Amino acid sequence: MLVARLLSAAVGIPLVLAAIWLAPWWGFAAVILLLSLRSQWEFYALFRPLGVAAFRGAGLAGGAVVVVAFAAGQAHPWRVPLALTLAVCGVLLVGLLPWSEHVDWSALALTLQGVCYCAWLLGHAIWLRDGAAGAGLLTLMLAVTWCGEAAAYFVGRAFGRHRLAPRVSPGKTIEGAAAQLLVSIAVAAAGGSMLGLPQGHAITLGAMLGVVGQVGDLAESWWKRCAGVKDAGAILPGHGGLLDRLDSLLFNIPALYYYWRLFIEPLRG
Amino acid sequence: MLVARLLSAAVGIPLVLAAIWLAPWWGFAAVILLLSLRSQWEFYALFRPLGVAAFRGAGLAGGAVVVVAFAAGQAHPWRVPLALTLAVCGVLLVGLLPWSEHVDWSALALTLQGVCYCAWLLGHAIWLRDGAAGAGLLTLMLAVTWCGEAAAYFVGRAFGRHRLAPRVSPGKTIEGAAAQLLVSIAVAAAGGSMLGLPQGHAITLGAMLGVVGQVGDLAESWWKRCAGVKDAGAILPGHGGLLDRLDSLLFNIPALYYYWRLFIEPLRG
Repeated sequence: MLVARLLSAAVGIPLVLAAIWLAPWWGFAAVILLLSLRSQWEFYALFRPLGVAAFRGAGLAGGAVVVVAFAAGQAHPWRVPLALTLAVCGVLLVGLLPWSEHVDWSALALTLQGVCYCAWLLGHAIWLRDGAAGAGLLTLMLAVTWCGEAAAYFVGRAFGRHRLAPRVSPGKTIEGAAAQLLVSIAVAAAGGSMLGLPQGHAITLGAMLGVVGQVGDLAESWWKRCAGVKDAGAILPGHGGLLDRLDSLLFNIPALYYYWRLFIEPLRG
Repeated sequence: MLVARLLSAAVGIPLVLAAIWLAPWWGFAAVILLLSLRSQWEFYALFRPLGVAAFRGAGLAGGAVVVVAFAAGQAHPWRVPLALTLAVCGVLLVGLLPWSEHVDWSALALTLQGVCYCAWLLGHAIWLRDGAAGAGLLTLMLAVTWCGEAAAYFVGRAFGRHRLAPRVSPGKTIEGAAAQLLVSIAVAAAGGSMLGLPQGHAITLGAMLGVVGQVGDLAESWWKRCAGVKDAGAILPGHGGLLDRLDSLLFNIPALYYYWRLFIEPLRG
């Protein structure tokens, strides 16, 4: 299991870094679009065993419109709200179609949930990369998140005694969570100075990503627990589904984007 | 019934016009916030008879954040996506709270649905009024929507033979829908020239509002049918709940805003 995990990482991480540092803007947007569609697909598939069929077609179309708008929206910021509005109204319309006679309201609400959870949150990665030092910030966030998760895994296995959230995610321990927080701060402090971030902001960012990422991880565990499954898929050897790998990032990407927008960008005038 | 309806209108319409034409920006935003919270409350209440308890507290808080961001967002357009992100993530967190042990995923998805359906769509009214000729456009939209609905009601009662959507809204007829479309175009053509809109745009706008508003009406009917209720509430004598009165506007407000943004604003340079 651990070997498969490390091998996946050895192949996947260089690909991700290439997309962040080398791809043109549309290439990066295409990668985000694929990740978003796949994770949304996995999200909907979670609920199949319960007999709940989300409107995959409408949901994925709405999600794609949202991600494309993030790519097209820097110069025209109203395009992103327009895309979300189209997704909200479009999903509502599905219930009106003549062949949707037996459609349940919960399937419709789940469809919109998938758009907001996967496409909306992940789309912020495109805005984040577009900004000044965007590629650096994205890389720093990945390093913070992944090093922190590795610390939580190893420290939790070695020293974990007290469960963090036994109902939602029985494997997580308070000891592991504390290790993730500390390592997140350390990595952010080291990486932040390479990016020229003020030390106070780098440490605050590390603490924020260390907490918010774990919350995102628990949020995905909650959905899986509701659906009664352990992994969201099996696309990444040793890592489960794509959604299992993106769960922390889905929360950390917008958190970093808005932190940058609110606190770091104004410093640079 | 008709008398109560007309009396409600005689009291309500002057209040609405005063809010549009006379209130300061924060007063209009406060009106929209109240309308949004009340309609979201009614939306959640629809599902109580089914035993589904949305997280009203988290949902209404998320909706309020979204509407306030629309009011605060003209100069800082990223505040609106930030508010939606907070609402999306905040609602997700409710499932993680220690006292949410018996929370169902469908109640959580319904909570987010209420934010997107009521607060997100209605918030666009604030942006619409902020723009050039905003108060005039809002008034035109209300006139188009309400005259169109009156036409559908009377023509449908007098001449309606063919049902439009028997499964979702058995009272609606194709004859009424056609009357609404024609009256919408006529009112928009007359009112548009008063606002100085090019005639082609006024007619297109009227046709769009005449169709989109009816779709919004059907969408609300669909939710009510799912919940097995006839009216969303009884706050307005003769009109049912606030949501029953806002249903067309929830779709027409963003439709008009983006039409203006895409096609009319560029004309004025």
